[in-house]
Amino acid sequence: MLDFDFWSPTYFSFGRGRESMTGELVKKFGGSRVLIHYGGASAVKSGLIDRVKKSLKDAGISFVELGGVQPNPRAELVYAGIDLAREHGVDFILAVGGGSVIDSAKAIAAGAPYNGDFWDMFCGVPMGENVLPVGVVLTIAAAGSEASNGCVITGTDCTKRVFSGPSDLNRPRFAILNPELTATLPPSQVANGGADIMAHIFERYFSKTKDVETTDRLCEGLLLALIETLPRAVKNPADYEASANIMWAGMLAHNNVVGVGRKQDWLSHRLEHELSAKYDVAHGAGLAVMFPAWMRYVMHYDTPRFARFARNVWGVVDTDDLTAANHGITKLVEFWSSLGLPKNFAELGAKREDIESMADGVAALGCEGMGSIMQFYKNDFIKIYELAADAK
Amino acid sequence: MLDFDFWSPTYFSFGRGRESMTGELVKKFGGSRVLIHYGGASAVKSGLIDRVKKSLKDAGISFVELGGVQPNPRAELVYAGIDLAREHGVDFILAVGGGSVIDSAKAIAAGAPYNGDFWDMFCGVPMGENVLPVGVVLTIAAAGSEASNGCVITGTDCTKRVFSGPSDLNRPRFAILNPELTATLPPSQVANGGADIMAHIFERYFSKTKDVETTDRLCEGLLLALIETLPRAVKNPADYEASANIMWAGMLAHNNVVGVGRKQDWLSHRLEHELSAKYDVAHGAGLAVMFPAWMRYVMHYDTPRFARFARNVWGVVDTDDLTAANHGITKLVEFWSSLGLPKNFAELGAKREDIESMADGVAALGCEGMGSIMQFYKNDFIKIYELAADAK
Repeated sequence: MLDFDFWSPTYFSFGRGRESMTGELVKKFGGSRVLIHYGGASAVKSGLIDRVKKSLKDAGISFVELGGVQPNPRAELVYAGIDLAREHGVDFILAVGGGSVIDSAKAIAAGAPYNGDFWDMFCGVPMGENVLPVGVVLTIAAAGSEASNGCVITGTDCTKRVFSGPSDLNRPRFAILNPELTATLPPSQVANGGADIMAHIFERYFSKTKDVETTDRLCEGLLLALIETLPRAVKNPADYEASANIMWAGMLAHNNVVGVGRKQDWLSHRLEHELSAKYDVAHGAGLAVMFPAWMRYVMHYDTPRFARFARNVWGVVDTDDLTAANHGITKLVEFWSSLGLPKNFAELGAKREDIESMADGVAALGCEGMGSIMQFYKNDFIKIYELAADAK
Repeated sequence: MLDFDFWSPTYFSFGRGRESMTGELVKKFGGSRVLIHYGGASAVKSGLIDRVKKSLKDAGISFVELGGVQPNPRAELVYAGIDLAREHGVDFILAVGGGSVIDSAKAIAAGAPYNGDFWDMFCGVPMGENVLPVGVVLTIAAAGSEASNGCVITGTDCTKRVFSGPSDLNRPRFAILNPELTATLPPSQVANGGADIMAHIFERYFSKTKDVETTDRLCEGLLLALIETLPRAVKNPADYEASANIMWAGMLAHNNVVGVGRKQDWLSHRLEHELSAKYDVAHGAGLAVMFPAWMRYVMHYDTPRFARFARNVWGVVDTDDLTAANHGITKLVEFWSSLGLPKNFAELGAKREDIESMADGVAALGCEGMGSIMQFYKNDFIKIYELAADAK
């Protein structure tokens, strides 16, 4: 096991109707003038934004609002949010939505007090410790941004960039997790979210670090719980109990409690970010295509690990490691297909002729955070994209 | 799943030599004048206390010290610590030790700023929010107090009392977890610690709350990891990798991340507290005797849950639930015996004739926190103690 630091100070308020606690929690964490940040019309139509506003008013907290966050959130709206926050002297950013909204809120929170371009955070420029606090009312279990210290924004040049750390300032101060709020999601979004959650576990689980039995078992446990509950929630997004289990798993999959002490490999997310930046496909759908391809490529470099995955997560009984490893990946693809997720470029709407330029895009980001079981170079990216394009 | 709040804001610094970070972490969390609290001579002899003092000095932090905490820590030393903290204007309590030291430190931290008797915290008297911050340098994986909001103290009247919440003020601000520090423990202490950790998981896992698949799987995952690593650490306490996995599992077993959303049952701990208060036996050893007895009694009220435990944790394949449930408990007893833990009153040094008075002691504490699968009355305590006394 590797040495590590772990800090997940986010306060979680979990359960039915918990958005009524928003005002109280903003106050507890020092907010008095809030920017409410959200996405499309559904949060308004459903009455959620009104309930959040009422809770803020009841707590004596003033607010301004900025909707319109799109999936794969854009820098343009972050700039608008920073201007609005500065104009109104906002001291707390409240994200009401999923990963895109939370990530956009985190970027506004970092950018508003910063004397420069917020895009610096994605270019390795140190921005100091002056960051506005962020709170969350979560509306979909997927990205895990409600408890992570990272965010992903698509820049004005259309490149999708990941910020992670180096400090924990970007972790939300509180997150309200009410599984009732996911009851009206289309099943496809529940499935996409599920693929994203499982991918967050995979990026941690497939590690070359030995003797990490505790976090290995926790990763396998989360996966087993998701395999049990995702089909129920996709079939019926109003299944509260299934949704509740998925929502808690989604947080745990990404606050890093199951990923500490090991070298992680975030290549699959990088490969997918190129896809979603180019075709604006849902992140989870892109991951469902990329991850099995990544697995089929990498499994030859640590077959016992992929055999363990197959046996402990999918109940595969083959005694030969390579057979078991292949069998496990097939089980994963079958599972994701049963949830309606795509298997290959054609089902995703991606094009084989773009592989070279996407591989260039991944290579341009450098090596940090990439590679655990093996090191990767551009030629590897191309081969993995080809496996994804041609998958049956 | 039940609604819940979860907050585990403790900062974990995990790995080799991490006690050298003590001064920096005390400073990060606002301390300037520290009471170093520890147990017996081993922390001094090993050089640990000197390394901690050096780290504090290097960070410009002054300190006083109070050693002498015994297993099953006593109120008398808490009073001495409170006096010392007040006399020297201490603003931070640093526990260097295991659960007993941390619990004693938490009680001092609550009592020093309190205008009254600290024992009020064990009697349900609200003590306000003015509590000194606590930091931890952990020397044994067991109690999980390094991340919990509770503590256990034996009063001047020899009753062992549990404080838990109601707020999270008692959670340590930071915990330094260096698995090297457990390398010199006697194997019996490693085994006792392991039983305590497993018991913390059991108290959460054996719940009547349905549809808690995510936390069920996490509980099972932690248990599987402990079953893999405890025999290695008991055989060789200097096995760093095994110790590291156990140490991280010990924290997770008790910061409640695997216990949220379910009705828990802490009766077995209560039954054991009577044993350790009466005979001064090690808490883990007492739990190793009490938990299988509790299981054999309670399994008739929710046999499928105990059958699931047997199948998912012990790999039992019996199709009949009652057979499987019994088989799982037998496997647990065999496992604990293989670690050198006691099986019954005789091996523990407890006496059958004390059962009535111990049952009275448990009953006197009232029902809060007791009973999930079933409700308990004094007659149940007697029967469980009898099963523990007579176990083969």
